Amino acid sequence: MGIIGGGQLARMCAGPAAELSVALSVLAEAPDAAAAQVIASAPVGSHSDTEAVLAFARECDVVTFDHEHVPPDVLAALVAEGVTLHPSPEALVFAQDKLAMRRRLTEVGIACPQWARATTAEEVTAFGEQVGWPVVAKTPRGGYDGKGVRVAGSVDELSDWLGAVGEPGPLADGLLLEEKVDFVRELAVLVARSPSGQAAVWPVVETVQTDGICTEVLAPAPDLDPELAAVATEAGLRIAQNLGVTGVLAVEMFEVRHPASGHPAYVVNELAMRPHNSGHWSMDGAVTGQFEQHLRAVLDLPLGSPRQREPFTVMANVLGGDHPQLYPAYRHVMARDPALKVHLYGKGVRPGRKIGHVNVSGSDLADLRERARHAADYINGVVTE
Amino acid sequence: MGIIGGGQLARMCAGPAAELSVALSVLAEAPDAAAAQVIASAPVGSHSDTEAVLAFARECDVVTFDHEHVPPDVLAALVAEGVTLHPSPEALVFAQDKLAMRRRLTEVGIACPQWARATTAEEVTAFGEQVGWPVVAKTPRGGYDGKGVRVAGSVDELSDWLGAVGEPGPLADGLLLEEKVDFVRELAVLVARSPSGQAAVWPVVETVQTDGICTEVLAPAPDLDPELAAVATEAGLRIAQNLGVTGVLAVEMFEVRHPASGHPAYVVNELAMRPHNSGHWSMDGAVTGQFEQHLRAVLDLPLGSPRQREPFTVMANVLGGDHPQLYPAYRHVMARDPALKVHLYGKGVRPGRKIGHVNVSGSDLADLRERARHAADYINGVVTE
Repeated sequence: MGIIGGGQLARMCAGPAAELSVALSVLAEAPDAAAAQVIASAPVGSHSDTEAVLAFARECDVVTFDHEHVPPDVLAALVAEGVTLHPSPEALVFAQDKLAMRRRLTEVGIACPQWARATTAEEVTAFGEQVGWPVVAKTPRGGYDGKGVRVAGSVDELSDWLGAVGEPGPLADGLLLEEKVDFVRELAVLVARSPSGQAAVWPVVETVQTDGICTEVLAPAPDLDPELAAVATEAGLRIAQNLGVTGVLAVEMFEVRHPASGHPAYVVNELAMRPHNSGHWSMDGAVTGQFEQHLRAVLDLPLGSPRQREPFTVMANVLGGDHPQLYPAYRHVMARDPALKVHLYGKGVRPGRKIGHVNVSGSDLADLRERARHAADYINGVVTE
Repeated sequence: MGIIGGGQLARMCAGPAAELSVALSVLAEAPDAAAAQVIASAPVGSHSDTEAVLAFARECDVVTFDHEHVPPDVLAALVAEGVTLHPSPEALVFAQDKLAMRRRLTEVGIACPQWARATTAEEVTAFGEQVGWPVVAKTPRGGYDGKGVRVAGSVDELSDWLGAVGEPGPLADGLLLEEKVDFVRELAVLVARSPSGQAAVWPVVETVQTDGICTEVLAPAPDLDPELAAVATEAGLRIAQNLGVTGVLAVEMFEVRHPASGHPAYVVNELAMRPHNSGHWSMDGAVTGQFEQHLRAVLDLPLGSPRQREPFTVMANVLGGDHPQLYPAYRHVMARDPALKVHLYGKGVRPGRKIGHVNVSGSDLADLRERARHAADYINGVVTE
């Protein structure tokens, strides 16, 4: 099984692959990429170099992805060569192109924010007047972790993006405009679906974002309305099926209040077709973690149980801070909390970069949040005791 | 961190090492050894080749073991070179030499079967008359999985072994004789101890042996007398401390009835100083599994919580059967039981060889045993539906 991209998501497949005796190979950006450090077969090459990707894929029975950045022409070359890809390019486009995603989700009846495609200042103005300023503008392609997203209070704040419309790049097809959703909180539904069509869903989680980056996940989302949990879960399954997703799909949602009834409801924010930050809790919190499940789904093996093992699991991302040496902090947090599960990605420390995460499971949510937060902040250097 | 030996125990360190961002290297018997398949750094060399082991160890900050077969002269060369070994040769000898083990355990007040060293037929006869025939005879060195153990009904059945006493080899120092213990069942206590002296113990488990090979582990040992659980746990900790063990220690015990009072009691059967088959359940059943804990102990990191996560976890070993192809069976057992955790070692199938194990966790012990047994037997080919 080949994974294009050698980041932390590929890296975290290493343990489950060894357990399931799946021979794993990673096409890594560099010899010291996160996944290349721990996977025995890790040739170096760029995901946008068609020849490198083809040479890699020819050695694999099935190929999947660490990220969504493989260009369409490279995907097309793989398909032409007969390489089995999961997810397929037809599905993956809905994670690569947010305009395509909005169109398709709307077609299959999934709740979305009000949205429009805009290529001119007039269209932006019309949308702003329709849904109310500010609006959220997104580059259809190329965004991640809050990049390629802008909250605009007027059309003037988008003049540079409008100037790039039609040029090759993330704005080739125009801007995606969305209403700024007045949300209660953010949720995520994680689904795994196999080529045979078997699907498994983990409990709906709450994700906490700071400056556009996921910093904390609460599994399951506390005090979630049971009807919304069912509706959101069904939406995740429907998206996976209708978009033909294979492997893990993350559906990021906003929890909102229905404008008329006041009932809890969801609108979909983003899709990712790979293991996702919102599913890291499952590595320690579920019978089958997302990385094992992704392997099983991509290989069309029967899926594992997504049952949550303890009442709550809290995940906190460890972001790079000012201290390049993690080791002393790492000793400290392990000593303070023996039940803490520490996951580090072997990445160099840069401020704000995701370099690891911690999980902690139990029944007292407030206690778990404090412990996860403390550990992440201590490794980061935000707190020193 | 270096591991001498590339078997399944080294292999199962790969996942935890990646999570903790511990750079792992394995000195493997062959390029396709179980661990070499999944660990990026896996030079090939023999554990009994002093030069190969020294060259390997020079690249590591700390060295530990996949097995107990590294010869004393190789260990001495490593120490002379200043290599940090965990466990140290001074501790490891008690897992390599069963006579040394019996002497030391007796010194520190650990309950053992009645035992004696014998070098002559007269000594064997005297021991047999003292404790009653049959007796259990063991080669002090070189035994594993029931090899090097013989139940002898008379001195004649040991004449070949007595003939080898004093020759270089497993009987150089004589035979170890033990009374044949009339046990209720077999138990194991697994302890991890760090160089700083921190120790952690998992719940006492029941091990089920078939033809001298562990086939099933029940964690915790069901209906274990609480006082015996405490006494056995304390014995495990005392052994780890008094023998200076670092890393994981497995203490295999017999549960017996005190001849006078009839109270439940233990006697120690064997020691292993490494992750052990009796601890495989902890990979899925405890907050900290034995492989992660072994890494933490050997690196002198704070130890993780050994808390059991669900009321019971049952482990069943998968032994090689008549079918060299595991894949169809593997699909079947995953489909039958989505909560089954399958662990395969990447080893060629030979009848009776340990090629993997399964774990299953929950609260209904009889159900868990049936599921684990079925999966192991189905993969093995003993059952076909």
